[in-house]
Amino acid sequence: MKTFTAIVEAVLTATDPSTFVTRREQEIRIELAGIPGDRHYGLLRPADVRQSFYPRGTMIANRRQISIVGAEEMEQIATLLETGEILPEWLGANILLRGYAPLTLLPQGARLLFERGSTGLICEGENLPCSGPAKVIAASCDRPELAKKFVPAAKQKRGIVCSVEKEGTVAPGDTVRIMIP
Amino acid sequence: MKTFTAIVEAVLTATDPSTFVTRREQEIRIELAGIPGDRHYGLLRPADVRQSFYPRGTMIANRRQISIVGAEEMEQIATLLETGEILPEWLGANILLRGYAPLTLLPQGARLLFERGSTGLICEGENLPCSGPAKVIAASCDRPELAKKFVPAAKQKRGIVCSVEKEGTVAPGDTVRIMIP
Repeated sequence: MKTFTAIVEAVLTATDPSTFVTRREQEIRIELAGIPGDRHYGLLRPADVRQSFYPRGTMIANRRQISIVGAEEMEQIATLLETGEILPEWLGANILLRGYAPLTLLPQGARLLFERGSTGLICEGENLPCSGPAKVIAASCDRPELAKKFVPAAKQKRGIVCSVEKEGTVAPGDTVRIMIP
Repeated sequence: MKTFTAIVEAVLTATDPSTFVTRREQEIRIELAGIPGDRHYGLLRPADVRQSFYPRGTMIANRRQISIVGAEEMEQIATLLETGEILPEWLGANILLRGYAPLTLLPQGARLLFERGSTGLICEGENLPCSGPAKVIAASCDRPELAKKFVPAAKQKRGIVCSVEKEGTVAPGDTVRIMIP
């Protein structure tokens, strides 16, 4: 088991049903079903194209409640796209970390332990880039061409999705211990 | 994605709180939290020695609700121990499959899809042999020396634990599609 450390720079939620874009909070509470009020809260969710072995819309276990991005990877995408910055809000991220640069490469089963708030998350793998954030970034930067450039630029840099192993809280400044089996 | 097929030979539950030994049922209903009434039912369970990064007893997500053994592997253990047979009851198994011999080697993330009852399980890995079943087998066979011989004989043959992805039912005779990513 290899262990690394990173720091929480921001915590965010998507509570406006009209958009996946998140906004910053002072602290988030994380239950087994996710962040109460957040767009991805729920023990179950409808199967999508990633679980094509179920009919689309079948209610299945939700293991993608928490989306995490890394500050270093956001900076790499910003450099590639020449946008100055990429905000975690635009990607619908719930947590922004700094200090573990290859975040998106974390394997399924890695643990993220936030000791202050007694929270434990399980990495469920890469959050594959899709066109939703691409459109938000293109609109936010007023550069329509970014809608097509985001997905290739964000590959293996767009962060991870996590399920909840231990309920707790997370806030900016928290230290997270990252454990790779 | 590689796909294999196996057949359900038995379904079992542990409803007597005094023992982990299971007994056969005509059908089991599987919810997100497991099999109602079964010993391992629950969305949460106390952390044990396998999750030593949490204080022992901390309530964490339960991903070990369903225990599955393979008939071929049970026969291999029986040959090694010269017991004639090894019953799934003695191991506290919930499902006995036949037709996919290397069951215990299924990787974390493999899917088991029981189409008749519309059930989907996620393999969470090998169920490491421990001394509980060893004592039951030694007592059932009236051969005390088996208490020490079971664990080495059952290594990589003792079956898997699964979490629930899609709620449904499972019954003897069902076909299961095993999908390895």
